[in-house]
Amino acid sequence: MEGQGWVPLHSEQLKQSEITLTTIVMSKNILITTVPFGENDRKPLELLESANISYLVNPLGKKLTEGELSEMVSDVDAIIAGTEPITEFVMSKAPRLKMISRVGIGLDSVDLLAAQKRGIMVSYTPEAPAPAVADLTVGLMLSLLRRIHVSNNQMHQGTWQRYFGRRISEVTIGMIGVGRIGKQVLDRLQGFGKLNILANDISPDLELDQKFQLKWVTKEEIYREADVISFHLPLTHKTRNLIGSRELETMKSDAVLINTSRGGIVNEDDLYVAMSKGHLLGAALDVFVNEPYAGKLGEIERCLLTSHMGSMSVDCRTQMEIEATEEAVRFFQNRPLLGEVPAEEYQMRKHL
Amino acid sequence: MEGQGWVPLHSEQLKQSEITLTTIVMSKNILITTVPFGENDRKPLELLESANISYLVNPLGKKLTEGELSEMVSDVDAIIAGTEPITEFVMSKAPRLKMISRVGIGLDSVDLLAAQKRGIMVSYTPEAPAPAVADLTVGLMLSLLRRIHVSNNQMHQGTWQRYFGRRISEVTIGMIGVGRIGKQVLDRLQGFGKLNILANDISPDLELDQKFQLKWVTKEEIYREADVISFHLPLTHKTRNLIGSRELETMKSDAVLINTSRGGIVNEDDLYVAMSKGHLLGAALDVFVNEPYAGKLGEIERCLLTSHMGSMSVDCRTQMEIEATEEAVRFFQNRPLLGEVPAEEYQMRKHL
Repeated sequence: MEGQGWVPLHSEQLKQSEITLTTIVMSKNILITTVPFGENDRKPLELLESANISYLVNPLGKKLTEGELSEMVSDVDAIIAGTEPITEFVMSKAPRLKMISRVGIGLDSVDLLAAQKRGIMVSYTPEAPAPAVADLTVGLMLSLLRRIHVSNNQMHQGTWQRYFGRRISEVTIGMIGVGRIGKQVLDRLQGFGKLNILANDISPDLELDQKFQLKWVTKEEIYREADVISFHLPLTHKTRNLIGSRELETMKSDAVLINTSRGGIVNEDDLYVAMSKGHLLGAALDVFVNEPYAGKLGEIERCLLTSHMGSMSVDCRTQMEIEATEEAVRFFQNRPLLGEVPAEEYQMRKHL
Repeated sequence: MEGQGWVPLHSEQLKQSEITLTTIVMSKNILITTVPFGENDRKPLELLESANISYLVNPLGKKLTEGELSEMVSDVDAIIAGTEPITEFVMSKAPRLKMISRVGIGLDSVDLLAAQKRGIMVSYTPEAPAPAVADLTVGLMLSLLRRIHVSNNQMHQGTWQRYFGRRISEVTIGMIGVGRIGKQVLDRLQGFGKLNILANDISPDLELDQKFQLKWVTKEEIYREADVISFHLPLTHKTRNLIGSRELETMKSDAVLINTSRGGIVNEDDLYVAMSKGHLLGAALDVFVNEPYAGKLGEIERCLLTSHMGSMSVDCRTQMEIEATEEAVRFFQNRPLLGEVPAEEYQMRKHL
């Protein structure tokens, strides 16, 4: 990749101090693949500039494919990454790559074992997105339960139809995954009245029982019993296609489901088939197997679709960008990292 | 109006007991104008049947005009009423009318002073709708702040655009009216983090300061300072067109406003003009001057429109219908009323 678009060191800076000159000797290139970046707050870009790290923000302005990314990484020392696939193939085209700093929590897009083999450090920002994802999740729940999206669509077409809905405190909420984000969803539901929560997690945090009065049950019980089913899971070999035709069929015909975690956990084709037959009162997907999504679920009015906006609140997104950038700067300055991906994540991959 | 459609007394019931016969002597006709009615739960209809009151549910299945209503009331003893206009003219066509039992809280549709003059009792169900309206209001807030409705619309058209949003705890929430419903909205927002609430009410409940840490300010300060402005007011001569061009202009260009109380508080034409010029990030209206609404705001994508569904949760709606029906039955059985409209409401009208 040629230098076009890169933000280089300024010649003025070159003259300013010896420190700058020292830095230049070890000058680094960072590719920022996630977009938008630095849009609401330039601070992450300023951090790179003041550390004399040159950077390029994804020139295509969209989520990159493996092929596109592999053509951009030949002289890249670090990637400040979104959710594009950073595969072994991509790494093979990036001989200088020493660090991947994920803006966000999911790691499904990164081949961790390949990175480990090549000595590429991987960091992430697991805490920062949670409040924004939790706000969005509750918004989607309320839209589905009260059919806000359906009524809005019809009103814009000149049709007035009043729908009965249900209140948060009148339904059974099923939480599949009660980790960082799931807990924050439960926090937000507290003000809606006395709740009826069914929860499932691979390692249930039993301290939550007291706070939220939830009931730990099997996933199957949630599918059968819950009126609202919300997914807060990482995408792994165990959760890919967790929800297919068989699971959908066991759900109540007037249940609603919400996926703000990762595309692929709910099988999109199976959901389309089930909803086309009239099953489920509604579904809300913020995440998709292929993003940008332009698939068949768009044909279904009661399917609420948003464009992977879970973490896209100004404050959380800025926080994520700053944290990921600081981490990359720390890496190049040989300072201790704060967001290194924990060993368990690598272990989990080895057991595939 | 002829008997067609009326649910009459059953001859079987006639035989059953003397009490029934006594009731028949004073047989009453109730017109139920609000629709749907008894749809999720037949209990209100059963209450009338077991009290031997004959009833007719609005045969037009829509909100009645003054003219339509006036043609249906000639032999009606009570109306279980929605929001259709019960004017002096309507009352003049209803010589037997002795009671109006409103399903809901708003009284703007009833000419209270005309009713008083004619000795027509008016009751309402002010508590029952609040939880459902509060749930919907928070849903609309989250949709507006995260642009759920805009993204959903675009996704259904095959367009992927990611919007930045704001979180509840990152914005200033302005509450215009903190009564039964406003308080329940604040309850629901508690779980979203530390809030920044500006509040205005004609008689501020200062006990709320402790609970919600809100700041009582003028309406004008709310228009200027708040990012989210939500209206929880009755429609009176003081609140009609409360928000017109002048007030809209003082609002932040990226503010959002929500009206789930009564149509006419926010002037629809002025809102259309302001939003057409790009002012406001969004607006959500559940209530309109003329319902069913089919006006120009439907042209504006970021204007979120719902079909007066505030109280339309199954539980609240059922509760409202039962309460209003029980009140009518109490009236005809000469038992004390529980939902009589308080004297202040009549006083307020006298000061117009």
